[in-house]
Amino acid sequence: MIVDCALYRDGSRVQGDTDYRALRARARGADDFVWIGLHEPTEDEIADVAEVFGLHPLAVEDAVRAHQRPKLERYGDMVFVVLKTLWYVDERDAVETGEIAMFAGHDFVVSVRHGQGNELHSARRALESSHQVLGHGPGGVLYAVIDRVVDEYLDVVDELVVDVDEIETSVFSTDRTNDSARIYVLKRELAEVRRAVLPLREPVARLARGDVATVPEKARPFFRDVADHLARAAETVDSLDALLSTAFDAHLAQISVQQNDDMRKISAGAALVVVPTLIAGIYGMNFTHMPELGWTYGYPFALVLMGLVAAGLWALFKKSGWL
Amino acid sequence: MIVDCALYRDGSRVQGDTDYRALRARARGADDFVWIGLHEPTEDEIADVAEVFGLHPLAVEDAVRAHQRPKLERYGDMVFVVLKTLWYVDERDAVETGEIAMFAGHDFVVSVRHGQGNELHSARRALESSHQVLGHGPGGVLYAVIDRVVDEYLDVVDELVVDVDEIETSVFSTDRTNDSARIYVLKRELAEVRRAVLPLREPVARLARGDVATVPEKARPFFRDVADHLARAAETVDSLDALLSTAFDAHLAQISVQQNDDMRKISAGAALVVVPTLIAGIYGMNFTHMPELGWTYGYPFALVLMGLVAAGLWALFKKSGWL
Amino acid sequence: MIVDCALYRDGSRVQGDTDYRALRARARGADDFVWIGLHEPTEDEIADVAEVFGLHPLAVEDAVRAHQRPKLERYGDMVFVVLKTLWYVDERDAVETGEIAMFAGHDFVVSVRHGQGNELHSARRALESSHQVLGHGPGGVLYAVIDRVVDEYLDVVDELVVDVDEIETSVFSTDRTNDSARIYVLKRELAEVRRAVLPLREPVARLARGDVATVPEKARPFFRDVADHLARAAETVDSLDALLSTAFDAHLAQISVQQNDDMRKISAGAALVVVPTLIAGIYGMNFTHMPELGWTYGYPFALVLMGLVAAGLWALFKKSGWL
Amino acid sequence: MIVDCALYRDGSRVQGDTDYRALRARARGADDFVWIGLHEPTEDEIADVAEVFGLHPLAVEDAVRAHQRPKLERYGDMVFVVLKTLWYVDERDAVETGEIAMFAGHDFVVSVRHGQGNELHSARRALESSHQVLGHGPGGVLYAVIDRVVDEYLDVVDELVVDVDEIETSVFSTDRTNDSARIYVLKRELAEVRRAVLPLREPVARLARGDVATVPEKARPFFRDVADHLARAAETVDSLDALLSTAFDAHLAQISVQQNDDMRKISAGAALVVVPTLIAGIYGMNFTHMPELGWTYGYPFALVLMGLVAAGLWALFKKSGWL
Amino acid sequence: MIVDCALYRDGSRVQGDTDYRALRARARGADDFVWIGLHEPTEDEIADVAEVFGLHPLAVEDAVRAHQRPKLERYGDMVFVVLKTLWYVDERDAVETGEIAMFAGHDFVVSVRHGQGNELHSARRALESSHQVLGHGPGGVLYAVIDRVVDEYLDVVDELVVDVDEIETSVFSTDRTNDSARIYVLKRELAEVRRAVLPLREPVARLARGDVATVPEKARPFFRDVADHLARAAETVDSLDALLSTAFDAHLAQISVQQNDDMRKISAGAALVVVPTLIAGIYGMNFTHMPELGWTYGYPFALVLMGLVAAGLWALFKKSGWL
Repeated sequence: MIVDCALYRDGSRVQGDTDYRALRARARGADDFVWIGLHEPTEDEIADVAEVFGLHPLAVEDAVRAHQRPKLERYGDMVFVVLKTLWYVDERDAVETGEIAMFAGHDFVVSVRHGQGNELHSARRALESSHQVLGHGPGGVLYAVIDRVVDEYLDVVDELVVDVDEIETSVFSTDRTNDSARIYVLKRELAEVRRAVLPLREPVARLARGDVATVPEKARPFFRDVADHLARAAETVDSLDALLSTAFDAHLAQISVQQNDDMRKISAGAALVVVPTLIAGIYGMNFTHMPELGWTYGYPFALVLMGLVAAGLWALFKKSGWL
Repeated sequence: MIVDCALYRDGSRVQGDTDYRALRARARGADDFVWIGLHEPTEDEIADVAEVFGLHPLAVEDAVRAHQRPKLERYGDMVFVVLKTLWYVDERDAVETGEIAMFAGHDFVVSVRHGQGNELHSARRALESSHQVLGHGPGGVLYAVIDRVVDEYLDVVDELVVDVDEIETSVFSTDRTNDSARIYVLKRELAEVRRAVLPLREPVARLARGDVATVPEKARPFFRDVADHLARAAETVDSLDALLSTAFDAHLAQISVQQNDDMRKISAGAALVVVPTLIAGIYGMNFTHMPELGWTYGYPFALVLMGLVAAGLWALFKKSGWL
Repeated sequence: MIVDCALYRDGSRVQGDTDYRALRARARGADDFVWIGLHEPTEDEIADVAEVFGLHPLAVEDAVRAHQRPKLERYGDMVFVVLKTLWYVDERDAVETGEIAMFAGHDFVVSVRHGQGNELHSARRALESSHQVLGHGPGGVLYAVIDRVVDEYLDVVDELVVDVDEIETSVFSTDRTNDSARIYVLKRELAEVRRAVLPLREPVARLARGDVATVPEKARPFFRDVADHLARAAETVDSLDALLSTAFDAHLAQISVQQNDDMRKISAGAALVVVPTLIAGIYGMNFTHMPELGWTYGYPFALVLMGLVAAGLWALFKKSGWL
Repeated sequence: MIVDCALYRDGSRVQGDTDYRALRARARGADDFVWIGLHEPTEDEIADVAEVFGLHPLAVEDAVRAHQRPKLERYGDMVFVVLKTLWYVDERDAVETGEIAMFAGHDFVVSVRHGQGNELHSARRALESSHQVLGHGPGGVLYAVIDRVVDEYLDVVDELVVDVDEIETSVFSTDRTNDSARIYVLKRELAEVRRAVLPLREPVARLARGDVATVPEKARPFFRDVADHLARAAETVDSLDALLSTAFDAHLAQISVQQNDDMRKISAGAALVVVPTLIAGIYGMNFTHMPELGWTYGYPFALVLMGLVAAGLWALFKKSGWL
Repeated sequence: MIVDCALYRDGSRVQGDTDYRALRARARGADDFVWIGLHEPTEDEIADVAEVFGLHPLAVEDAVRAHQRPKLERYGDMVFVVLKTLWYVDERDAVETGEIAMFAGHDFVVSVRHGQGNELHSARRALESSHQVLGHGPGGVLYAVIDRVVDEYLDVVDELVVDVDEIETSVFSTDRTNDSARIYVLKRELAEVRRAVLPLREPVARLARGDVATVPEKARPFFRDVADHLARAAETVDSLDALLSTAFDAHLAQISVQQNDDMRKISAGAALVVVPTLIAGIYGMNFTHMPELGWTYGYPFALVLMGLVAAGLWALFKKSGWL
C-alpha cells in the first residue's frame, strides 16, 4: 500500500501525489527528491516502484520479505538500509518487532514498512517541519527515520529498566515468589532488543563516517548522534542482562535460604511434638512399680511436664534463631 | 559416482555428457564452463577428474576425506570451497550433517558431495533456469550451491527455534518434567550448527569482497546476501544458546522451588498425624487418676479432639500457603 | 546558572566577569581564553552561550539533556566532551552519578555540570594555582577537569574495594548471613562505575594521542596519565566484579554446607528422642508375661536404659561429627 | 643423544652419519641440507651442535629446558620452532605431553625432542619417501614434523570426543553416578590440549603466510592445510569444553531431581508407617468406654484397618507419582 | 634511600659511588651509563635525582606513589617503566606484591623499589657478571630487572599450581571438606597475579619490537624471551582460574551428592526405629481379645519380630545402596 508520496525541493514539500512516475519526472533540480512510503506492499506494487527507481532485485527481495537482519548495502550510488523497529506493549509487558527497509538514491527515497508499530507518518511530518534536516536531501530522510526508530529503542529499553527494577524488588522481598519465568521472559526480550540494536551499529557508523555518498558532509554529526544513542541502548541492554543474571542467581540463593529456614522451622516444630510424645510413652509403660502413676496429681504433673519441656524447647529454638 | 556433467555457454546448458574430457575440450569460448557433479567418488574417479582439471593434490585429498572444516582456499586462479550441509530429521528431532567440496576454475566447476542430504540436483535445475546467475559462470554456480546450503541452515535454525520454544513451555509448566537431557541434546545440536556456520563466514566474506578472481564484480551482491543469511543464522544460534542456558537455570530453579514446596507439604502432612498421635499417647498413660478415662464419652471426646486439632492445623497450613 | 566565568592569559586568571560576551571580546591574544562554568543551565542561558561561542546545536542538546554517554566529539576545531561524575555516599553505601559536558575551542571552554556532586569550583582554583597546566590553554582545562573526575572514580573504586572486603568477611563468617542482596547491589554499582569508566577510555586515548587540535603536544603526557588511571579503575572494577561472582558462588556453597550440617544435626537430635520412644513403646506392650514389668526397679531400669541409649547415640554422633 | 643425522640433496637422503660437522661441510649445493635429530641432549651435545650450526643462545636455552610455550621465532634467516606433542594413554584415559624444538636454517634442520611419545623417526622415514615434500628443503622438514604432531592432536581430540560421549551417557543414565570428578579431569585434559594447540596457530599462520624465508612459496599450501587442522582441533576442543560444562550442569540437575524424588519416596514411606502408628495409639488409650476393645474381632479389625489405611495411602501416592 | 649507585663502561662496573652527580659527570663515553638504585625514596631524594637526570614530573610522581599499573611510557628519548613484583609467602599461602619503577635514558638508569620483596641487589650482581647483557647499556639493565621480576612471576605461578592441586585433591576426597573459602582466596590471588602480568605484556612487546630507542637492536630477542615467559604465566593463570571454577562447581556437586547420601541414610535409619515402634504400638493396644498377649513367649516373640523387621529393612537398604 502506498502510504504517502511527495516531491521535496529546497527543504520543503512541494507536491504530494501517489503518481510517483510523474513526481520523479518533475524532480529535475539538483536537490529535488521524491519520498515514497509503502506499507507491506504487494509484489506488484514493489515491482513497479523498483522499475521506476531502478532498485536492485536482491534488495527488493529483502524489502518484501520480513525477518531480515538490520543492514546497510550499497548498490552503485544507491544505498539500501534495513531496520528492525521495536515497541513495548504495556498490557503484556512484551516487546514487539517490525521492520523498515529504505532505498535512498540521490533523488529519491523509498521506504517499506512491515508490522503494526512505528508508523512513519509522524516522522515525515516532523521532518517536513525541519528545513535544516530536510535540506540534507535523501540523507536527511534516512537520518529522520533511523533517529525515530532508535529513539524508540531507547523508550523500549527504559521500559525494560523498569521491569528489571520490579523483578529485583520481587526477588529480594520476603515473599515466596517464583521469579524465574519472569526473568526468563525478560532475558528473551533483551535478546530481541539486542538483535535489533547490535547489527545496526555498523551501518550507522558507516553513515556517520561518510562511506555513503547519499549522506552529505554536514549531515554526518547527526548520524554520530544516532550512533551514540545506539551505543547507549546496547550498553544498557548488556548491563540489564548482566543484572538479570545476577538477580537470577540471587533468586536461587533466596530459595536455598528459604529452604534452609523452612527445614529448621519444621524440625523445631517436630521437636515440640516428639519430646512430649516420649513422655506420654514413658507414662504409658506397664511397670508394676511406677510411683507417679499413683500420685493424685500425677496426670496434671505429666501434662505440665510436657508443657514445660515444649516451652523450654521453644525458648531454646527462639534464642538460637531456629524458630 | 558422477551424478551429472554438462557444458554451459552464455547462461545456458549446452550439452550434458559424462565424458568430461570431451566436454572440457569443447569449452573453448571465453564464458564456457563445465560443471561436473560427483557423489562420494572413489579414489580413481577423483584422481581422473583431478588430472583433467589440474586440481591441487592437497585440495583433492580434502575433498575425498569427509569431516573437513568449512573453508575457502585459492590454488593459483582456482578456488576450492568446503561446506558443511545440515538438515533436520523430524522423526528424531536431530540435526544431521554432510559435506560439499567445490573446485572452481575459470572454465569448470567440480562439486563433490558426501552424505545423504542436500542433493545438488535441484540446485542445478534451479540454476539452469536462471540465466542471470548462470551467466556469472563458475562464480554463479558457487553462489547457487552456497545459497542453497545456507538456506537450509536457516531452515534447520527455524526448526531449532521451535524446539527451544517447546522446552521453554515444558520448563515453565507446572508438570514435574526433567528437561535437562533435552536441553543438553539441543545445545549439542546448536554446537553442530555453529561448527557449520561460523567458519563459513570468512570464505563468504572473501567471495563478497571480490578476493576471488572466479567471482565477477556483478556477482558480489549475491554473496553479500549469503553473508547476511549466514550472519542471521549465527546470531539466531547464539541467541538460542543463551536462551537455553537461561532455560536450564530456570529449570534448576523450578526443581528447587518444587523441592521446597514438597518439603513443606510433607512436613505439614506429618504434623497432621503426629499431633493426634501425641494425644493418643497422653490418653494411653497409666495414671490412676485421669478423669477423662472414666467419662462415658471420653473416647469420642478424644477422637473429636484429635480431629479438631488436625483440622485446625490443616486450616492454619492452608492459610499460610504450606498445603 | 553561571557559576564562574573568567579570562585567562599566559597561565593566569586575568579577570572574572559573568559578562562572557565582553570577556570573549577581550580575549584577543594568541593564548588568551575564556572559561565559563554553568550548572544545570536553562534553555535560554545555554542558547545565549551557544550563540556567543558558536556551539553546534547537536552538542548543545546533549549538554542540556542529562543521561548522555561519555564521549568526545569534534565539530570543526571545537571539541565536545561528556563525562559521567561519580561519588560515594557513605550513609547509604551507594554510588551516585552526575554529568559534566565541556566545549573547548582554541580560545574558550564552556563547562556544563548536572547533579549535586563533583563541583568544579575547587578544580578551577587548583588549576589557577598551576601555571604549568593552565599554560596549556583550553586543553589544560580539559585535563584539569577530566583528571579531577577520574581521581574521584578511583576514590569510588577504593570504597567499593572496602565493601567487597566486608562482603567477603560476611560470606565466610560462621554466622548465617544472607549476603545475596548486598552482593547484588554492589554488582549494580560496579556496573554503574563501568558505564562511566569504559566509554571514557577512547576519548581520553584520543586526547593523549593528539587527535584533538585543542590539546598541545606537551599536554599529551598528562592525558596519558589520566588514561592510565582510567585503565586502573577499569581493571579494578573488572576484578571486583569477578571476585563478587566468586563470593556469590561461595555464598551458595556455604548455604548448602549449612543446610547439610543442619540436616545432620536435626536427624541426630531426632534419633535421641525416637529410640527412647521405641523403648517406652516396648514397655507399654500388654503381654501377660513381661518379667521386667514386675521388677521392683523395672521403671528406673527402663529410664536408665533410655538415658544410656540416648547418651550412646550422642557419643556416636559426636564422634562421627554429626552433632 | 643423537638419534639420526643425514645429508639430503634433491629430495633424497644422500648420506647418514653422526659426524654432523663433516656432513655440513659436504652440504655445499644450493638445495643441500643436513637434518640432525636429538633426543633430550646433554648440555655438551647441544652446545657443540649450536656451535657448528650457529644457533642463537636464547633459542638453545629454550630447546634444552622443557615446558616452553609453542612458538616460532626468527633469528636472522634462521627460524626456531617449539611444539608441544600430545598423546593419549588408553590405560589411564589421560593425555600426556612432550616437546619438540626445531631450528631451521637454509641448509640445516636441528630437531630436539623431549618426553617419551611422538618419536620423529617414522616422520623422517615418511618424509624420505616423499620427494615432493623433501624437495622443499628444511621447510619441508618443518612441515613434515608439524603435520605429524598436529595429526596426533586430532587423534587425541578424537579420543576425548569418545570420553565426553561416555560421560554424557553416564550423566543421563538413571544410575546414581557421581560424574563430577571425571568431568573435572576431562576439563583439565582439554585445557592441556588447548595449551598445545592455541599458541601454535600463530606460528603456523606465519609459515603459511610466507613470513619465514626458510619456507618456499610452493610449500605454503601445506602449512595452510596444517593451519586448518589446528583450527579444527581448537574448535572441537572448545565445543567439547562447552558440552562438558552443560553436562556438568545437567549432572547437578540430575542430582537435584533425584534428591527430590528420594525425598518424596521417603516421606511417602514414612506416612505408610506413621498413620497405622496413630491407629495403634488410639486403641492403646485407656478409656473405660471404648466399645471396639470389647469386640471379639476388635484386634483383627484394628490390624485390617491399619492395613487398609496403609494400602489406601500407597495407592494414592502411586497415583500421584510419589512412589 | 640510595641502595647502590655505579658507573658502567664497556659492559663492566667502573666505579661505585653514592654521589650520582659526580658519576654522571664522568659518564662521558658513548656507552657509559650510571645506574642508581633507590628504595622507597623520600620526596627530597627523588626530587634531587629527578633534577640531576632530568626526569619528567609526571613519571616521578608515579614512581613515588605506589599502587601504579604496570606500564611503559616514553618521555622524549627517556623511557619510564613500572612493574609489579610478586612473591609467594609460604607460611600464609599468600601472594604479596611490591613495585619497581625504572627510568632509562641513553646514559642512565634510575630504579625505584617499593615493598619488601624482590630486592634488585642480586639482579645487579648477576648483571655485572654478564658482559654480554651489560654491554647493551641501559636497555640491558631494563632487561635484567624485568627478566628477574618475570621469572619470579613464574615461581609464584608454580606455587599456585601446587595450591590448585591440593584443592583438587581436597574437593574430590571423600572427607567432608568446605573448600569454598580456600578456592575464593586462591581466585583472589590469581587475580592479583593477573593484574601484574597482563598490563606488562604490551610494554614488553614494545621493547621487543624496538619501539624504544634505549633498547639496541641486538637486545630485542631477550625481550621476546621475556614476552614469552609473560605469555606462559598469563596462560597458566587463565587455565588455573578456569580449573578452579570447575573445581568449585565440582565442590558444589559433591555437597549435593553428600546431602543426598545423608538424607537417604537418615531416612533408612529412621525406618529401622519407626517400624518396630509401630509393632510396639500394636501390642500396646488394649483389646480384650489379643491372643499373642496371653502367649507365654509373646513378649520375646514381639521383640524378635521387631528385630527381624529391622534386620530385614537393614538388608533391603544395604542391597539398594541406601545405607
